[in-house]
Parts: sequence; structure tokens; C-alpha cells
Amino acid sequence: MTDLLVIGTGLIGTSVGLALRESGEFRVLLHDSDSAARDAAVARGAGEPWDGHQAVDLVLASVPPRASAPVLREVQSLKLARTYTHVSSVQSQVQREVESLDCDLSSVVGGHPLAGRESSGPGAASGDLFVGRPWALCPSIASSAQALEDVRALALACGATPLVVGAQEHDEAVALLSHLPQVASSALAALLVPAGADQGAPGDQGDQGDQLGAQSRRIRTELSGTGLVDTTRLAASAPALWTEILVANAAQLAPDVRALAGLLSGLAGDLECLAAPSDPQERAQALAAVTALLVRGNHGRALVPVKRGVRDEGFARVGVEVDDRPGRLAALLTAAGEAGVNVEDVRVDHVPGRPRGVIELLVATAAATPLEAALRERGWALRQSD
Amino acid sequence: MTDLLVIGTGLIGTSVGLALRESGEFRVLLHDSDSAARDAAVARGAGEPWDGHQAVDLVLASVPPRASAPVLREVQSLKLARTYTHVSSVQSQVQREVESLDCDLSSVVGGHPLAGRESSGPGAASGDLFVGRPWALCPSIASSAQALEDVRALALACGATPLVVGAQEHDEAVALLSHLPQVASSALAALLVPAGADQGAPGDQGDQGDQLGAQSRRIRTELSGTGLVDTTRLAASAPALWTEILVANAAQLAPDVRALAGLLSGLAGDLECLAAPSDPQERAQALAAVTALLVRGNHGRALVPVKRGVRDEGFARVGVEVDDRPGRLAALLTAAGEAGVNVEDVRVDHVPGRPRGVIELLVATAAATPLEAALRERGWALRQSD
Repeated sequence: MTDLLVIGTGLIGTSVGLALRESGEFRVLLHDSDSAARDAAVARGAGEPWDGHQAVDLVLASVPPRASAPVLREVQSLKLARTYTHVSSVQSQVQREVESLDCDLSSVVGGHPLAGRESSGPGAASGDLFVGRPWALCPSIASSAQALEDVRALALACGATPLVVGAQEHDEAVALLSHLPQVASSALAALLVPAGADQGAPGDQGDQGDQLGAQSRRIRTELSGTGLVDTTRLAASAPALWTEILVANAAQLAPDVRALAGLLSGLAGDLECLAAPSDPQERAQALAAVTALLVRGNHGRALVPVKRGVRDEGFARVGVEVDDRPGRLAALLTAAGEAGVNVEDVRVDHVPGRPRGVIELLVATAAATPLEAALRERGWALRQSD
Repeated sequence: MTDLLVIGTGLIGTSVGLALRESGEFRVLLHDSDSAARDAAVARGAGEPWDGHQAVDLVLASVPPRASAPVLREVQSLKLARTYTHVSSVQSQVQREVESLDCDLSSVVGGHPLAGRESSGPGAASGDLFVGRPWALCPSIASSAQALEDVRALALACGATPLVVGAQEHDEAVALLSHLPQVASSALAALLVPAGADQGAPGDQGDQGDQLGAQSRRIRTELSGTGLVDTTRLAASAPALWTEILVANAAQLAPDVRALAGLLSGLAGDLECLAAPSDPQERAQALAAVTALLVRGNHGRALVPVKRGVRDEGFARVGVEVDDRPGRLAALLTAAGEAGVNVEDVRVDHVPGRPRGVIELLVATAAATPLEAALRERGWALRQSD
């Protein structure tokens, strides 16, 4: 039986307690500087209140990034446990802070469960939040094998998939895979608010009724599709916490945001060209650029891990034999795009040194036969049935 | 009993047939230039094959935007029906084309069910695709009341909520609410593909195995969170169809894409400032700008209609009494953001001419008490319980 002290009973800390409740391997003690949040987590069954003294095996600091290192330093000074971890979305900065605060580095292993929701607090917690999700483990050079083992066991007991990765590599990955989607979602949602409507200074508009009226007249949000609901879901995230995360990872994130702005700025230029009378060659180039971005988006989406059970339902695999030349995957995906077929996933079955491999495309069941016909027509060799 | 001819048995056309199957009010005939797609829709039970001659009451052209007007012109010339509609995502251009093709304008009413999925084809169709979704009806000045009634009845029978709106106003709304999320999602997903990896020219990289290896090394997509799955879902959309839609609405969409690029470009600058050593005042301004974008994103997300049943579960309403001055809503949302609370929805209960109104904030149940405390501390008046 491992004794775990969870410090910080927000969404993540409380969810850990709930996840471990049935494990039989962990006894969970809870602490929060806000005793109402602690009581809420206890009431949900996430664990028992910590008495402020009791030693444990493992401490999990599930507090905002800025507080992670100071909290770890404080509990280490009390010699409370043999291993200490945190759940910060940004690892390098916390690792540097832990070093500068003169902690015992051997007992610290950073962690980051890649699970979250746009809601926060113990009320939003769920015992299955981590099931099937990755949990990054970022040991430093000084971390002991025991400490890594302790944190790995915690991640596994929560149902997550532990993944050991360097702090810097982690931060680069989450900039692109987590922080960039957050800012894109926020920016997209921000545009639903007419400029100025959220910043009304006294006197520059009519009364509040008018202001809100103007807003609802200008945005027919009842005309929104389900795509808007998905793409703006992250925009509900808490600004205070996310400011902290984005700033902590600013160096990694800035180039990604710059690149996204650049792609969109290029697209705006292409659309402006297509909207205005322009010469046929310019038009053709702009048109090709619009399609190329959408096709590249298909490629990117195919790299996103989606839960297997969900994505395979109603889908079929089309196998294509390809020879061993660069760019064949890109050409195949482009051909599928031209045929009007969405590729949901790609699997490459390639034996190094062999002249031919197989690329499997996951597509909607109804699209499989038309796709096969279109590919044959374009000279692709379909995989022979066994 | 209304006889309906569906021309084009893709996702939308087949879903209409499936939706009407049980209605008892419509008899559905199906046609598609691709007889395999027609047969697939018939096999799914969406209707009976059309014999190529039989007259009906209503024709629905569920074909890509570019084909909508020519198809309507063709069936009108056969005097097949009393009313004709289409389902184009862009209305103005089709309306102009219908006029220029010299159709009988009185019998045509444009329509656009705001329902879709990133998958296409009859295999992806579903009888409940339209339930609770808006269905825009865009009559022209020349449209007859009978034609509008016929199309409204169709939308209602599919379970959708008909919404009469001008073609121009429709196109402006979908640019912001549908087409902008699509391109943002595509651009975000596109960045997961390292530049060049999808464009490999022979000789400039190693063999395909190396190329794919480099790609998977550079993108640790196993570290992605659920946010990436949601924000890139639209990026799986079919490039051919979406190029057509974006180009048809280029004039409306270009300024929105420009605005999104501008917001992100500004954010990149702020992050660059925060990543580099810079003077405290510049830092403070950049920090405030990052938070302001996230807060504005909260405001925007609160305007997005999410299905009631989903969003209200686990949430509570906090009522705040506000006096009738501009900017109070913005100030309230900012205060909630500073308190670290996500606002999921906003309802304003304001009686014009009365000095005070009530703003209701929908927040996670666990966040309600802390939010109330934070607002009281900041001098806001909470609604008195009845």
C-alpha cells in the first residue's frame, strides 16, 4: 500500500484521488490551501484530509505551474516523502526552479498527465479522466530510479500510459499539440465578440441593452454548426491558469503561433485574390494554395491519435502498394483528397530495404469503393487480398 | 403526402431521406449521377430510385455549391415540381447564378441545413443529423410564399429549426461561424506536418522509411491532449468540396481570416517579448494582452450555442445584479476570469428602461461558491434568492 499526499484538490488532484479510490494500492490524503476545495474533494470521495504532519511515500503537487516548485521545496523541507512529483503543463521551467531552490533533486520527477477539460475545480473531476491518456514523466539527470518508478506506478494506477520524455522535448511537443490549439481556439472565439463590445467605456455606446442587442444582431450565432462548438471548446479555459502556462512556455510557443499566423495570413491573401477580379494565372495559383492547405490539414489530422473504438466504427481500410520513393505518401493523400475522400488515419507498413511497402488509409466505409476506383484510375496499385 | 425528389445522395441528401423515412408525410425518390452512390442510399433505406421522369412536389438538390444552380435549372426545365431548393453552404452566389440562368425564381428557395460531419458520402449519413440543428432558409425577393412554406415543412420534418435569413446575411454569418473554424482547424493540423515532409521531391530526402521516421520523431503526437482532437476534427474535411465552399464565400471570409491572422500575429509578438529579457513595463503589457485574448475568448465561447442537456449537467447559475451602464458585462466576465473561473454561458435578463438587470453566469457547480465569494469581494451585488 502506497501513501499518497495530493496537494491541490483542483480538477487534476481530485481526479487522481477518484481514480485511485478503487485501486487498492494507494491510500490518498488530500490538502489544499483553500479548505473549501479540500472539503469538496473529500466529499466527492477522493481521499481523507491530511493532518498537516503525517509522512507519506509520495507527494503529488497538483497546483498551477508557478506554485509547483515552491510547494515541492516546502514539503521536501518537512521530509514528508521519498518521492515528489507535480503535474505542470510546462516542465523545463519547473525543473529549473526546483534546481535553483536547492531541492534534493534525486527524489523529484516531473509529470504531466495529458488529460484535462475546460472546466476546473473538484466538481469537474472524474475518476476516468486519465484512462488511456498519456502521462509524461520528465526525470532530470539527478532523478533516482526509485523516484521514476514511484511516479510511473502512480500514472499506471490512474489508468494512464506513462511516457518518459525529456523536459525540453516535452515542452516543444505540448507547445504545438496543446498550447497552440488553446490559443487558436481562444482567438477564434474572440472574433465572435465584435471589437469594442467587450471593452465598452462609459458613454461611447448606448445603454447596456443596446450594446448587447447590437452584439446579437451582428452575430447570428444560432447559425453556427457543430464545428464551431468543437473548435471553440478550449476557449472556455480559465484565463489566469492559461496565462501562466503560455508564459511559462513562451519561448517554445512563440514560433508556433507565428507559423499559424503566417499560414492564415497567406490564406487571407489567396482569398482576397479569389474574391477580386484577377488574372487567370494568379487565380489558379491562389486556388491551388487553398486546396494545398486543406490537403496538408488532412495529412496533419491523420497524425492525431483519436480513440480507436471511436474512429474505426463505420470506417474501412484501403491498402495501397507503394514503391520506395520519397513523397509517395504525400502523393497518395493528395490523390485521395482530389477524389473528395477524407482520410481519417494512415498506417504505413514498410519493411526497410524492401522495394515496396503498403500504406493503409482509413476512410468512411461508403467511401472505400469510390476511393479504390479513383486510385486505380490514377495508376495506384491496390493491395492484393490474401 | 408530399413527393420529394432528392438529387445527390451524399451525406446530406441521404440523411434527409433517412430523416423522412418515418415521418409519414413525405415519399422520397432518389437520384444521383453516380448510380453506385444512389444504390448505396437506396440500400440504406433513404428512399426509392427515381425513374428519371416522375413529377414530384418538391426537388432538393443536395449537390456541391457549384452544381446547385445548373441542377435546379435542369430540373425546372422538365417542370418536375412546384418548389425547388438546394443545400449550398454559400447562398448569395447560387442565388445570383439561379437568376442569371433565367430560372423561374418564384419556385426557388435556397436552404442550408447547418449540420454536417467531416465524413462524406451516403455511408456517413444519419437520420438524426438535422435534429435540433438550424436550417437556414434564404428566399429571394421573387420567391413565392408557397415555395417558402414547402421548404420550411421539409426542414421541420427533418427535425431541424428553420430560420429565414437573407442570403448575404447568411453568408457573412457562416464565414465567421463555419468557414473560419474550418480553415483554422486545417491550418492547425497542417502545422503537425513538418514543412516539406508532405512535399518530398525525389532525391531531397532519404528513402520513404527515413522520411516517415523523421516525421514521427519530430512530432510526438502521442503527447497530444484531447483539445487537439477537437480542434483538428474539421481538418479531415474533403479538400475538393471545401475549396469550392471557401472560394464561393471568399469575399466574406477573407476579412475574417485576416482578422484571425492579426490576433495570432499580435499574440506571437507578446510571447516573443515574454520569452526574451525585456523591460518590466513591456512585459506587463504583453502579459495583459495574453490574458485579454483568453478573456475575450471566454466571452466568445459563451456566445456559442451548445446543446442544453450537455452543457447544463454539472453546472450552476450565478446571478449578478448589474446597473444599466455599458461595459458591465465585460467587466463581470473579466472579474470571473481573474478569479480563475470558466464561464460556460451567459444569460442577460434586462428590462429596457429599468435601471438594473440580472446577468446569469453558467459555471461548473464546484466553481459557483468560490465565484460568488470573489465577486462579492470585488463589490458585485449577487442576485437575492427569492
